[in-house]
Amino acid sequence: MLATRYRLRASDKNEAGAMAERIALEQSAELPRQVVDRLPEDIPTGRIDHLEQLDSESFALHISWPVALFDDDPLQLINVLFGNISLLPGIRLEFVDWNPITNCFYGPYLGIDGIREKLGITDRALSCTALKPIGLSPEDLAELTGKFARGGIDLIKDDHGLADQKSAPFDKRITACANVAGNEEQRLGRSCWYIPNVTSNSAELPKRLKACRNAGICMVMLCPHLTGLDSLTLPAEYELGVLAHPAFSGSSVLQPDSGIHPALLYGELWRAWGADGIIYPNSGGRFVLGDEDCAGINASARNPELPWKRAWPVPGGGIDRNSVSEWVQRYGKDTIFLIGGSLYDAPDGIEAASSDFRRALQNS
Amino acid sequence: MLATRYRLRASDKNEAGAMAERIALEQSAELPRQVVDRLPEDIPTGRIDHLEQLDSESFALHISWPVALFDDDPLQLINVLFGNISLLPGIRLEFVDWNPITNCFYGPYLGIDGIREKLGITDRALSCTALKPIGLSPEDLAELTGKFARGGIDLIKDDHGLADQKSAPFDKRITACANVAGNEEQRLGRSCWYIPNVTSNSAELPKRLKACRNAGICMVMLCPHLTGLDSLTLPAEYELGVLAHPAFSGSSVLQPDSGIHPALLYGELWRAWGADGIIYPNSGGRFVLGDEDCAGINASARNPELPWKRAWPVPGGGIDRNSVSEWVQRYGKDTIFLIGGSLYDAPDGIEAASSDFRRALQNS
Repeated sequence: MLATRYRLRASDKNEAGAMAERIALEQSAELPRQVVDRLPEDIPTGRIDHLEQLDSESFALHISWPVALFDDDPLQLINVLFGNISLLPGIRLEFVDWNPITNCFYGPYLGIDGIREKLGITDRALSCTALKPIGLSPEDLAELTGKFARGGIDLIKDDHGLADQKSAPFDKRITACANVAGNEEQRLGRSCWYIPNVTSNSAELPKRLKACRNAGICMVMLCPHLTGLDSLTLPAEYELGVLAHPAFSGSSVLQPDSGIHPALLYGELWRAWGADGIIYPNSGGRFVLGDEDCAGINASARNPELPWKRAWPVPGGGIDRNSVSEWVQRYGKDTIFLIGGSLYDAPDGIEAASSDFRRALQNS
Repeated sequence: MLATRYRLRASDKNEAGAMAERIALEQSAELPRQVVDRLPEDIPTGRIDHLEQLDSESFALHISWPVALFDDDPLQLINVLFGNISLLPGIRLEFVDWNPITNCFYGPYLGIDGIREKLGITDRALSCTALKPIGLSPEDLAELTGKFARGGIDLIKDDHGLADQKSAPFDKRITACANVAGNEEQRLGRSCWYIPNVTSNSAELPKRLKACRNAGICMVMLCPHLTGLDSLTLPAEYELGVLAHPAFSGSSVLQPDSGIHPALLYGELWRAWGADGIIYPNSGGRFVLGDEDCAGINASARNPELPWKRAWPVPGGGIDRNSVSEWVQRYGKDTIFLIGGSLYDAPDGIEAASSDFRRALQNS
């Protein structure tokens, strides 16, 4: 059995009990109780383990799911965990005990240690930035790559909006940017990865991954809520690490009493599916996740007790270039800090601001 | 330019104006305004056309997006429409003018007319039911298929939870059920389609589609929010129609002031991507979409002014077998009514209840 916990919004124990019964059947047999009762006893349904009142309007439902509902199929597991009940209000998935189902998922290809080893950086947090905006040519983007590389940024990723637009077609863009990153890496004697956005349809994605491997690229980025969660498993087949980007995922995590807890979705589910780095909107930036949620994502991504390689939390979405030291203190060194706009907006230019960013990480 | 409309939750025009400016940049350049102002003029950003107060706490934002932000890439279009701003509260996508971007999408392979023609049913609404629960063997499911077929159900689909579990492996299940449906079809001289659930990862999905075509199957079902929206385009490559199922999509449509309007997501976006039939949780059943939302989905799915074949609305999720005539009166004949639990729970058995269902459709 797979143990899970949901938070239910209910005004009393009767209402919560009815919701619990409803969930146990909706996510398994999807039949009325009286029909299930007439079926053979080995038909798998959810088992309500415990229902606990948390406050005047919420309950914790501890419910276990027979493995026979999904066997080793991770998409069907997501379906059992939160498929149909995503369509009901007042239900939030908060906890999954992954231990009985480690076969379902492979986890990150590189993880925290693998990326540290490949980069040769053992003792500090990592810097990341984004090439943008859409509309620049491959040459413009390559020029930006050079500035960030000379400033000392470790990971230079595409903006998640750079796809295969006419302004910067995928093949030309990755060749141009990977060349500049590679040249600066050699010249400066320090690691600098260009990380292309490969978000694309299922026919195109394998081609783009292959092109990345052929260009000597080590890591890519994709938006799993656009491409399907399963797409996070593909880069490893091309010996590529992967950064997961949260575009189109927000509706699942923003409501405190519905959807999926952000630490569970980003920190655990994405990691389980294969994300080496987990980009999330940091508190205090342009988005609205709070301090506790961000700390939760960090802890889950790095949790050594989960059965997969540890993943990098990648806070972004409005971090100020002048606050890097404080964030390192708060989040620790096993963090990739993603700063975009604040470097572009620096009065002394991108290269100087990137050098400051690097120095702040080295001195923290 | 692609014209769109969002509903914003804001207490006054200043707040709404700041949100509008924020959206215009977040979904395009993703850079602060002062940085964008220093870039070449042809950098594409959102253009705020009009901001209109709706009531004391909401505004309609009319905003247009340069096609250069996504060119012909439908996933990148979704990213522009609702990628990062899915992570912000109080923003709901409500309208898209598809006309400038018909190249992005192919629409349904069969649509309403194509399915009517293949089934040979021109004058009435269609019936659909679901094979369940998980845990039954292929033989059990084939036996159920026979009962529904003899009762006169037009479309007998897998439960969306039937994947490739050991209890009913995909290949054995589809062979057993398709055989029974085909035999009954011949014997009774009337159409009866078995519709397998093909929801699976990107390596497996094409294999399952091929197996379906080889088994003589006409239509499949998948859950696009598990497999990625793009997966809706794949069945047509195997000359198969597709029913889209809403599992895992609920967080995007349940909040009245965030996410995507259900008529737009289910009725238009799914149809644009290729859904021939759009399964949604009907009002008055086990789920919570209201009358207006359901009417909106029906109207969008069938809207003759959109540039694609019309799609079937497929209301389900708790329709009572005794209310069929009323629903046909309300929703019209270009509707597929999906009834599961209420047929399983019928006192006279599945076959008799299915016959009543058919008669109700024929007499409506």
